[in-house]
Amino acid sequence: MKKVMNQPEHIVSQMLDGMAQAYPERLRLLEETGVLVRRDAPVNGKVGLVSGGGSGHEPAHGGYVGKGMLDAAVAGEVFTSPTPDQILKAIQAVDSGEGVLCIVKNYTGDVLNFEMAAELAAAEGIQVEQVIVHDDVAVEDSTHTTGRRGIAGTVLVHKIAGAKAEQGASLKEVKEVVEETVSRVRSMGVALEPCTLPEAGQPSFTLGTDEIELGIGIHGEPGVARTEQLPAEALVKRLSGKVIGDLPFERGDRVAVLVNGMGSTPLMELHVVHRELIEILSENGLTPVQAWVGEYMTSLDMAGFSITLLKLNKELEQLLLSESDTPAFRV
Amino acid sequence: MKKVMNQPEHIVSQMLDGMAQAYPERLRLLEETGVLVRRDAPVNGKVGLVSGGGSGHEPAHGGYVGKGMLDAAVAGEVFTSPTPDQILKAIQAVDSGEGVLCIVKNYTGDVLNFEMAAELAAAEGIQVEQVIVHDDVAVEDSTHTTGRRGIAGTVLVHKIAGAKAEQGASLKEVKEVVEETVSRVRSMGVALEPCTLPEAGQPSFTLGTDEIELGIGIHGEPGVARTEQLPAEALVKRLSGKVIGDLPFERGDRVAVLVNGMGSTPLMELHVVHRELIEILSENGLTPVQAWVGEYMTSLDMAGFSITLLKLNKELEQLLLSESDTPAFRV
Repeated sequence: MKKVMNQPEHIVSQMLDGMAQAYPERLRLLEETGVLVRRDAPVNGKVGLVSGGGSGHEPAHGGYVGKGMLDAAVAGEVFTSPTPDQILKAIQAVDSGEGVLCIVKNYTGDVLNFEMAAELAAAEGIQVEQVIVHDDVAVEDSTHTTGRRGIAGTVLVHKIAGAKAEQGASLKEVKEVVEETVSRVRSMGVALEPCTLPEAGQPSFTLGTDEIELGIGIHGEPGVARTEQLPAEALVKRLSGKVIGDLPFERGDRVAVLVNGMGSTPLMELHVVHRELIEILSENGLTPVQAWVGEYMTSLDMAGFSITLLKLNKELEQLLLSESDTPAFRV
Repeated sequence: MKKVMNQPEHIVSQMLDGMAQAYPERLRLLEETGVLVRRDAPVNGKVGLVSGGGSGHEPAHGGYVGKGMLDAAVAGEVFTSPTPDQILKAIQAVDSGEGVLCIVKNYTGDVLNFEMAAELAAAEGIQVEQVIVHDDVAVEDSTHTTGRRGIAGTVLVHKIAGAKAEQGASLKEVKEVVEETVSRVRSMGVALEPCTLPEAGQPSFTLGTDEIELGIGIHGEPGVARTEQLPAEALVKRLSGKVIGDLPFERGDRVAVLVNGMGSTPLMELHVVHRELIEILSENGLTPVQAWVGEYMTSLDMAGFSITLLKLNKELEQLLLSESDTPAFRV
């Protein structure tokens, strides 16, 4: 294993230091918590937005903290849910009295710990609501999850939630638009190479030299099929076919597009994927309104990518394209 | 070799299609040329700025095309200089009558072909000037270069050039500020793993399982030393020591910082690098004014990173931090 780090047990805290130092105008790190918050949190009169999960998915979630997006991101150890205590500190830090919405990727540990934190916060008189994102169409139930997993589509959910909250909407209104978004977003991924956890030193699974895995999760949870390598065209067709057929997306839909690298797949290849996807959208009568191509929800050094489509309506489109200011997301 | 692509010989043209489709408001692709230009080029009354080189360094250079940065990026095949004819087309497309400055990374093929293109353009009555970037302090002369190589520091040069041109400065004035920037920027990189060219199918060099190479170039050109893996702290100290000592940077200097991933090194690790670097800057009495941490000048799927420091003065700082709008660079 080759990684640029000091002691593996310090990689998360040192990474968080580095992020806070890179974006001092936007972020600050709550001491000893693993929580990055908006520099100006809590924002008066605004619903607070918290997300988070295990580390290893950078820029998620700290990269999405800032005006028009999240108020706080809670980072657990690598691929490990943050503790209820960490999450509680994030909720406390961003509550301005208008309540807090937690946006949680569907993984059993995350869901449980966010729920427990919400109860602790409620006991302190903070209003907390929670929305679970489950955009991965690949499999129902998997290693760490009951139901569908939450993956890269979560980033678009963050953006829409942030825009709505920035408008001064109530907790109930923000939650409604987030639930609407979750109901319209679908993703699926593929791994070409596994990832290696810093403390493990060995890949978390293995793939043959010509083998790829379709529908894999962002921690290497098993997907739907292993196959030999496919040309980009066939590969994107296979993933997007399942994504498009699931909602289903229909002719005439306006969609947001996210082509997400899993950590070690070069931008050159992601743009080839985007080209293929645009062609398929056109064949299906879908209009891509805006695309994001890059690393948004990674899996350490895994090679591969995921495709996300979000079916827009007028309000979601306006919210998605509105101004924001975070380290890792821009329109 | 695992890559997401169709036929390897089409990867560059398909990647350019994908980029142009991802950023239709900012970019357009000149048909059959490998040239991405600002959507509104040529910009009336403004000096045109052209850069480019072999592909495989994405987001360089297409990601830096837009308001306040480049007017055109010319993409050669992977790790192959663009032809004089391609470069000429870029120059023609962005000249508004105010002349064109070409910003060229120091590689022999690039320098020769940009020079030839400048001569062809001059024969058509277009004023063209050229500045060579040679920020890599690792080695003098190397496989493809006489003198020092041009690497990630080029991105900061693009930004400053673009800001100056946007102010309506003359070709002579833009060239002067670019030369000043080049004289103040220094970089050095390290590879943990080699890269694989799409058409070759095999890594371009090899490293032992515990071996890294210091001072390597962005095409895998040999560096200054191979060593066993080092902790991030020691590694960053070694690279930054050479960078700081070279100019030299001196106590009290205000600097811009670029921590650049080589293609497959996760953002988590780059932020650990950034943390170490900030500590070293502080020990040296250097003030980091702004940092960029991410993938800016990659080398296909190479693992590793480079560190760039730019010594600012009042004008350079103001130009660097001024507004711009490109796919891959923001303040």
